Amino acid sequence: MSEAAARAWVDARRDDVLRTLTEYASIPSVSTDPAYAEGIAKAADFLVELLTKSGLEHASVQPTAGHPVVTADWLHAPGQPTLLIYGHYDVQPPDPLEKWHSPPFTPAIRDGRLYARGVSDDKGPVMVAITAIAALLATSGRLPVNLKFLLEGEEEMGSAHLGPFVEAHAAELAADFVLSADGAGWRADLPTVTVASRGLCALEVTVHGAAKDLHSGRHGGSVGNPIQALARLLASLHRDNGAVAVAGFYDRVRTLSNSARAEIAALPFDEAAYLASVGALPGSGEAGWSLLERNWIRPTLEFNGISGGYAGAGGKTVIPASANAKISCRLVPHQDPHEILGLIASHLTAHCPPGVTLDIHRHAGVSQPYAIAEDHRGLVLAQQILQELHGKKVLPVRMGATIPIGEMFARCLGIDTVFFSFATSDEDYHAPNEFFRLSSLWDGIGAWIAYLSRVGEAWR
Amino acid sequence: MSEAAARAWVDARRDDVLRTLTEYASIPSVSTDPAYAEGIAKAADFLVELLTKSGLEHASVQPTAGHPVVTADWLHAPGQPTLLIYGHYDVQPPDPLEKWHSPPFTPAIRDGRLYARGVSDDKGPVMVAITAIAALLATSGRLPVNLKFLLEGEEEMGSAHLGPFVEAHAAELAADFVLSADGAGWRADLPTVTVASRGLCALEVTVHGAAKDLHSGRHGGSVGNPIQALARLLASLHRDNGAVAVAGFYDRVRTLSNSARAEIAALPFDEAAYLASVGALPGSGEAGWSLLERNWIRPTLEFNGISGGYAGAGGKTVIPASANAKISCRLVPHQDPHEILGLIASHLTAHCPPGVTLDIHRHAGVSQPYAIAEDHRGLVLAQQILQELHGKKVLPVRMGATIPIGEMFARCLGIDTVFFSFATSDEDYHAPNEFFRLSSLWDGIGAWIAYLSRVGEAWR
Repeated sequence: MSEAAARAWVDARRDDVLRTLTEYASIPSVSTDPAYAEGIAKAADFLVELLTKSGLEHASVQPTAGHPVVTADWLHAPGQPTLLIYGHYDVQPPDPLEKWHSPPFTPAIRDGRLYARGVSDDKGPVMVAITAIAALLATSGRLPVNLKFLLEGEEEMGSAHLGPFVEAHAAELAADFVLSADGAGWRADLPTVTVASRGLCALEVTVHGAAKDLHSGRHGGSVGNPIQALARLLASLHRDNGAVAVAGFYDRVRTLSNSARAEIAALPFDEAAYLASVGALPGSGEAGWSLLERNWIRPTLEFNGISGGYAGAGGKTVIPASANAKISCRLVPHQDPHEILGLIASHLTAHCPPGVTLDIHRHAGVSQPYAIAEDHRGLVLAQQILQELHGKKVLPVRMGATIPIGEMFARCLGIDTVFFSFATSDEDYHAPNEFFRLSSLWDGIGAWIAYLSRVGEAWR
Repeated sequence: MSEAAARAWVDARRDDVLRTLTEYASIPSVSTDPAYAEGIAKAADFLVELLTKSGLEHASVQPTAGHPVVTADWLHAPGQPTLLIYGHYDVQPPDPLEKWHSPPFTPAIRDGRLYARGVSDDKGPVMVAITAIAALLATSGRLPVNLKFLLEGEEEMGSAHLGPFVEAHAAELAADFVLSADGAGWRADLPTVTVASRGLCALEVTVHGAAKDLHSGRHGGSVGNPIQALARLLASLHRDNGAVAVAGFYDRVRTLSNSARAEIAALPFDEAAYLASVGALPGSGEAGWSLLERNWIRPTLEFNGISGGYAGAGGKTVIPASANAKISCRLVPHQDPHEILGLIASHLTAHCPPGVTLDIHRHAGVSQPYAIAEDHRGLVLAQQILQELHGKKVLPVRMGATIPIGEMFARCLGIDTVFFSFATSDEDYHAPNEFFRLSSLWDGIGAWIAYLSRVGEAWR
């Protein structure tokens, strides 16, 4: 009956919950850009207040070597399992700003969706978890399980300082497994649980030509053009068939068994419909693999940004002094992010054309690929609750994206991570007009109430 | 004696002259960017007032299909030749703004140089011409020659509407030759006269992938990356030896005779010192040609700007929806700008990778290459006056840059153009911290006084 009471408590307070999420999502907590430092601090403080108000104990902001983490706990259920709840309060940069229909940090509701930067990734899903706990505590005066909270501020920049923090606080953070409010579901129309995610590493390369921008007539033909050199360098990183051309890149990649590939091929997935949904054309990517295979089980090398010279309206006859490209890779099991960065850096250095010089900057945040056993009891419970909610079979799937915490918690605490986020992958969370479905907010709170109420029995 | 009187008149008014130039250079008359429309209008009005105050007649702003031209005349020297004085009042865009040591439209004097956007190209040199005329009129009450002024506002965007204006006003603009206040000297340390300039054409290409920016994990491997496609496209435009790879690009280029190449090789020019002066390395450009040849007699295809995806601090794991490159070519005699644009567009279309689409936008302003006979009497006079000023032989040289007006005046009015600008090519006029030497201002005014005083006799 406590599940029903907690759900009723939430239903009577939907306006309050939505107002709180709106306030939270209005904080510009962009982690990658130092200009948003104030937003990061404000979001952490906001969470401490919210966790405390919700009935969690010892809520506090704790320093790391980067942006701080927010922790809290409730540990008064002896004999019951202990869950470490993970989420993050940082968000992606909002640009290109001109493409937003409403300002990124002024949350707006349209057609049953709340629009704001970070509302799907990960502020909405974290609100789901906290609200479920608040409801259980308010209606029962206690929780059926022990909880610890760990909410970080560097997920969008690779969680570089979370691992050292968890290692240093391993005893305090000890738990039976991690329940993550991050890690969006594969599709809005098909409930799934995630069993694997790709790793990530990133670097940027700057090509330097002359000491300053030069007139393209006066100097054209005389000096190296950094954009020309950069284009040649970037073009050298892929083969004509779309495969990555960096020597050694695939050396540690293990080919999936035919049966595992057959399972992926059997999933209900319409490549043409997917491409149409994102407005893309077929024909790109590594030849010889299906679209889902390219996204789930094959590593990629992507260009995330390029800049150099004049980018304003009209033209400017200039040879720029430099040009820059941002590069990132998604990695599959057994690839090592640091090794891959080294291979790419060597490739770039070896292919640098004459007349220019290179600066290569490896980004600090890397993450390993991750996988969980499909019979993990916490995962099976998540699957059951989603099946109840949606009234259909919930499939285990891999994901193309990276959730660095899976591998990190396994390494630092020796425990698995169950992803139980109510964001879905179509919510534009790394693009303009990010949104979170209000239906996911209410469904998610109900599902978390059910999960926390039943996990004690499931774990037994 | 009138030359000396005019020079003395200027020497007594140096502060006034400098104040006027400072006021003129503070007007942000950027032609390529519509955001500066007010600056364009203000600069034209400023010139009308200055020309009138200097004693020129009929000064007025006249509309074209683009930015207006400023015209004026003084036609009271019967039996004397008529010169059409050309210059421009528009300037290059000032960005990257953060690289300026003082704001681009707040002129500042440091070390005998006036720093401001447009002060070398072409506001300082136009002030030289107007001040010389004002001095002659103030001291003699008349001019030894007939003058017409034509100052345009679209030189930095290719002078697309100047030709039609000149064609439509051919009778009013009729003259013996054009004396241009635009067209910077080759080097500050070596006085020269310019006998040839390269043509110009430009286009930009935008590569479109998905309809919006996408998360590089969720979608990486599934959709085309516009930066990857653009890099491959741009890399395909040059061969490994630095030559342009566009089919037909060199078809109309005539190879210079061995003796003409030997003349260029005999010029006092230190490749290593030049490269050091602009902070560039050797090894770039088309193999098989000297640096001066690559700059003067060989066509180029240069990348002037590239943009796409995330360009802020740190990283952003995004696959951008599009990427853009701005491309321009410098052309040598017999190449046709429109034909070259067509060849490049065909090449890009033919090389477009699967999974993306292209938008190709040809910039309207193109210009033909130009050359003047080395025994043109107006050119020989310019050479003599520069030899007097510098006390050494003044060499005829070609230039890598483009002055579209040479070919245009030949075609529309049937007359040649003598370039007599006192800007020099090291004055960063398409880069941050553009400057004009104050010594060039005073030397130039004196030289223009001499030129206008003697051209009647030279032309006879």
